[in-house]
Amino acid sequence: MEIGRLGEFGLIDRLVKLLEIKDPSVVVGFGDDCSAVSVDGKLLLFTGDIQLEGRHFIKKLTPPEDLGWKLVSVNVSDVVACGGKPEWGFISVGFPPELGLDYVEGIYRGINKASRHYRMSVIGGNTTSSDSIILDLFLTGTTRRFIPRSGATDGQIVVLSGYTGLARAGLELLMMEKKEYQGFEKRLIDAFLKPVARLDLSEKLSRYASSAIDISDGLAGDTGHLAESSGVKIVFDKEKLPVNEDLLTYCRKAGKNVYDYMLYGGEDYQILFSVDRDNLRYFPECFPVGSIEKGTGLFLKDGGREVPIRPEGFTHI
Amino acid sequence: MEIGRLGEFGLIDRLVKLLEIKDPSVVVGFGDDCSAVSVDGKLLLFTGDIQLEGRHFIKKLTPPEDLGWKLVSVNVSDVVACGGKPEWGFISVGFPPELGLDYVEGIYRGINKASRHYRMSVIGGNTTSSDSIILDLFLTGTTRRFIPRSGATDGQIVVLSGYTGLARAGLELLMMEKKEYQGFEKRLIDAFLKPVARLDLSEKLSRYASSAIDISDGLAGDTGHLAESSGVKIVFDKEKLPVNEDLLTYCRKAGKNVYDYMLYGGEDYQILFSVDRDNLRYFPECFPVGSIEKGTGLFLKDGGREVPIRPEGFTHI
Repeated sequence: MEIGRLGEFGLIDRLVKLLEIKDPSVVVGFGDDCSAVSVDGKLLLFTGDIQLEGRHFIKKLTPPEDLGWKLVSVNVSDVVACGGKPEWGFISVGFPPELGLDYVEGIYRGINKASRHYRMSVIGGNTTSSDSIILDLFLTGTTRRFIPRSGATDGQIVVLSGYTGLARAGLELLMMEKKEYQGFEKRLIDAFLKPVARLDLSEKLSRYASSAIDISDGLAGDTGHLAESSGVKIVFDKEKLPVNEDLLTYCRKAGKNVYDYMLYGGEDYQILFSVDRDNLRYFPECFPVGSIEKGTGLFLKDGGREVPIRPEGFTHI
Repeated sequence: MEIGRLGEFGLIDRLVKLLEIKDPSVVVGFGDDCSAVSVDGKLLLFTGDIQLEGRHFIKKLTPPEDLGWKLVSVNVSDVVACGGKPEWGFISVGFPPELGLDYVEGIYRGINKASRHYRMSVIGGNTTSSDSIILDLFLTGTTRRFIPRSGATDGQIVVLSGYTGLARAGLELLMMEKKEYQGFEKRLIDAFLKPVARLDLSEKLSRYASSAIDISDGLAGDTGHLAESSGVKIVFDKEKLPVNEDLLTYCRKAGKNVYDYMLYGGEDYQILFSVDRDNLRYFPECFPVGSIEKGTGLFLKDGGREVPIRPEGFTHI
């Protein structure tokens, strides 16, 4: 059977079963934003994310500094989602021999800029030649407490760290290859090219969140994963989902439904998490967007109606 | 300028300069077989190695279990070269959607088999779709003492952990795609497909070695790196370089110079290290192959003559 027929998550389920973990120091294995091990009582987080030319980025549309910045940011976001701080990166790269030195050095300048921003260091690496650009960063972090996807309980509030849908709109704009972009368009493109991981929230998440997930694959899909891991039902309140002005402008001009972008966009690198109502006050910069209830599945409350949100695609609100 | 003109090491030199490491817990950065950080007094090692289809392996010639085994082994070898034990792996993979599930599951069975053999665990991962198979393993290890490339001093003995050149002969045999192979041919092919990292030596290296390097890029080139890092001259004694019987048989039949294979073969995953003469007795299974002297460069003593061994290729012995 071809693996494409299983889908990404079906395949991962099959493969993970083949790997035995017998080491008692492993606190979290597969299935969360990071793995975690306990080293003399200290919790280390491991994560990794790859950027492939032609699949995750198109070279001619991607300034190399932005590519390096994003490579680091997407990994930091996974560490943040577990309540951690990034510490040490190890980079594995493949470059075609005909690639320009300027471009490669630009990538590394972006990596260094992001590393300084997030107060971490890339400390080692491995280089090979390849047919197209491969950038794979492995990141080790630390945390005082691991915040899993599975800790949400009914009665808690579900909170979103920021706007979603911007990156998808930004990618669409980038692909248009316009000669000139308006201000709101530039900001959307930047949201796609230069995402900023929410390291500002990490410490508070590790103190007050009961569960969290990096919603980089899209708000609906990843919230669905959190609901499933926690064994709860999550209900978004449509009125509370934050609508970004630039995204709204874009959608109005393009005749698109802004909720399509917000729920299914992806690559925004915001965090969705759950807290007790009492702890909401620690997150004044974030958006309480719904509630956690007994049951299963993800729903949207729109006025009096409560409709299921399907992870695979959204049609009517 | 195209990066191909710089060569792998020239490129790495340029790129590493762009990455600042300010974290005082980083004990070893770029330029050794592993990076190392100190976590509450415990030394952690980080390494990573990628296997690309068409570049590091040819799918139709590589049983998937062997591919998984090798992916782990090449990383363990880097940890061993620093005197460490492998602990936790994180795997980043790219697979074409049309790839067969059998093949992918075979790779993971090989990874698990190797993980059990080396008493480590692969505890997390990341999956993407790609045009050809990408397997990237990041490995974290621990060590009581970091054995660098740079610790060799004159008067010490240079020691080789085992035979070299077998893997290259094995690859050549594999590429012939013979219908049937003789016994010595099968053993050479196995040396290429199923290398075994020398974890058995790790503890002793951490106690008694002054320097060490994984000679996976070839004995001459990697010994040259160790000599350069240590600021010493290394002289191999031709009579003491261990000649494998199977390799000798292969070279005689093929009309090849066995020392070409031994010095430039690569992918053998043996360790070259230096020790005080007094400590040689702890390594009865290894081969003392030469001496460390004041000076620079790598030489071969053949009878009375001492000839330079150039890293880039070998012509006459």
